[in-house]
Amino acid sequence: MSTLEYQEGRTELDDLGEFALIERLTEGFETYNKTTCKGVGDDCAVIGEGNVKTLVTVNTMAEGVHFDMMYTPLKHLGYKSVASSLSNIAAMNGKARQIEVSIAVSNRYSVEALEELYAGIRLCCNRYDVDLVGGSTVSSRSGMVLTVTAIGEVQDNKISYRSGAKLHDLICVSGDLGSAYSGLLILEREKVTYQANPNFQPDLDSYDYVLERFLKPEPRLDIIAMLAEKDVVPTSMIDVADGLASELLHICHSSHCGCEVYEEKIPIDYQTTRVCTELSRNMLPVSNALNGGGDYELLFTIDQKDYDKIKDMDGVHIIGHITEEGSPAVMVTPQNSTITLVAQGFREN
Amino acid sequence: MSTLEYQEGRTELDDLGEFALIERLTEGFETYNKTTCKGVGDDCAVIGEGNVKTLVTVNTMAEGVHFDMMYTPLKHLGYKSVASSLSNIAAMNGKARQIEVSIAVSNRYSVEALEELYAGIRLCCNRYDVDLVGGSTVSSRSGMVLTVTAIGEVQDNKISYRSGAKLHDLICVSGDLGSAYSGLLILEREKVTYQANPNFQPDLDSYDYVLERFLKPEPRLDIIAMLAEKDVVPTSMIDVADGLASELLHICHSSHCGCEVYEEKIPIDYQTTRVCTELSRNMLPVSNALNGGGDYELLFTIDQKDYDKIKDMDGVHIIGHITEEGSPAVMVTPQNSTITLVAQGFREN
Repeated sequence: MSTLEYQEGRTELDDLGEFALIERLTEGFETYNKTTCKGVGDDCAVIGEGNVKTLVTVNTMAEGVHFDMMYTPLKHLGYKSVASSLSNIAAMNGKARQIEVSIAVSNRYSVEALEELYAGIRLCCNRYDVDLVGGSTVSSRSGMVLTVTAIGEVQDNKISYRSGAKLHDLICVSGDLGSAYSGLLILEREKVTYQANPNFQPDLDSYDYVLERFLKPEPRLDIIAMLAEKDVVPTSMIDVADGLASELLHICHSSHCGCEVYEEKIPIDYQTTRVCTELSRNMLPVSNALNGGGDYELLFTIDQKDYDKIKDMDGVHIIGHITEEGSPAVMVTPQNSTITLVAQGFREN
Repeated sequence: MSTLEYQEGRTELDDLGEFALIERLTEGFETYNKTTCKGVGDDCAVIGEGNVKTLVTVNTMAEGVHFDMMYTPLKHLGYKSVASSLSNIAAMNGKARQIEVSIAVSNRYSVEALEELYAGIRLCCNRYDVDLVGGSTVSSRSGMVLTVTAIGEVQDNKISYRSGAKLHDLICVSGDLGSAYSGLLILEREKVTYQANPNFQPDLDSYDYVLERFLKPEPRLDIIAMLAEKDVVPTSMIDVADGLASELLHICHSSHCGCEVYEEKIPIDYQTTRVCTELSRNMLPVSNALNGGGDYELLFTIDQKDYDKIKDMDGVHIIGHITEEGSPAVMVTPQNSTITLVAQGFREN
């Protein structure tokens, strides 16, 4: 009678990154079904035989790691858990149709608390015409773990994988980057102040934009719709969940290419810049864009022939281009020096 | 700045059962997509438009609630997490094709421990020709929460919902019941002994069958194949995850009917009986069958015209019949008294 958790020569989970870990764990799995078009390694699995493929993605958020109950309203948490899953479906150029929600929760939470959570889930489902089709609620010993499975669909010839970027393709990103992480930094600052003095009443009004970006992100289905309208199929796509640097590296790795992005082209909202200045003289907004996360914008590449269709598209920014295999992923500064990108990733809280 | 967890007039999660809770939380959700054929309320969601429908089910297991690391080998846990999901697909008369696995895990676990878990997942995938197509591994503050999403398919005209049982249909169950719960009781006994004396070496050899039933259940895809071969489509079906009584009540509730099952027809293995006798003079094996769980057998109803096709089917037992709407769900004892069934449910550990 023993547990298998403690072993000699153990490798700590932190010694591997999340992606190296998944690679190691899923090694040696075989594929038996012809309906499995794409398994591990993209934003969604792609399943089916006909012209319309089914997309499936699973996202898990754990209390104390991905969210802090100290400053996360449950309604926002419910909304965000769905929104981030819909963003994964969008990143394949697809449309989410259904979700299942699974919650492991301790008895610290009341029924009313879960109703708040579900109010947020419902709000996001209503907004994006998505059906809740199942799930489960089970007890846990401590905290909350929330898993959302999203199911979507996409025309076979419109799928954007991470692996399709080609030499000279243009790199585009939607919206602005780094704002969600700036919102998180503000909440963390207020939490520390509150813990030192529980009578403290934070005034968060002037941070509306960055807080909303962190607490209640929106999946960029509007971008997917605009691309479809202009008949542009991105050659590759991913959503920006973990910071621009990490996502660019995913595309370069999957597409066997390098990339060059221009620092002054990376879209950063003035409020992100203001928060950075306020928090520290040394905090560069572009660092939040590269290494922060949770923006849920879309990062994609297009063939140069589509430049005219993209160049005036609302909320889409061309930030660089794909370079040849073997080249690094780099950012070019306004002073024309190049910085090699590394995946520092991002962990909420 | 406040948390929403503590409120006046709060309702404790334990005040509602799991099913009442899900009903309350999912109230007011609308359906927007014509591809949503069946949402909340059966073993799987049913999705799609063509003759072949997609089945999706999500199962979550939490450490300390659904499994105890003291006596659960991680390889078995991995196997069981997949097997129980495949069982849900089988309960719709379908065949699982893909799974996604999501794990929230604390740093108490090593990479090698997760490799053990995945070895079990792979074993079950190999055995049943299922493809692992995605998932995630995230940090948690404590323990492990394991969520498996299974995706399957079924011919539209072969789906067995919980809601299709009709008056006079025969009630069938596969395999034997109560053995998994008996295995759990043995493990719990040994755990207590071990905690009192860590030098104690349990001898579990003579409990092989019940332990395997608990630790490494098999989804009854063989039964699904036999039914297909004989061209029998169950009028209703569910898998026995929470005990026979609870599952019968689900079918009666969904199908708007009552039922009558015969105590002496309920299949109970002699080893289940032996364990019950050994553990306590007052422990009735039939209680483990009714209120235990984790057997992952199939409970289904068939039209009387299919009786001849079923009566000699290996591992299938006819245990009763469906009665009219408004009648209770009852068990008839050998002494011809009737006992009204209630859902005591079952919680592993």
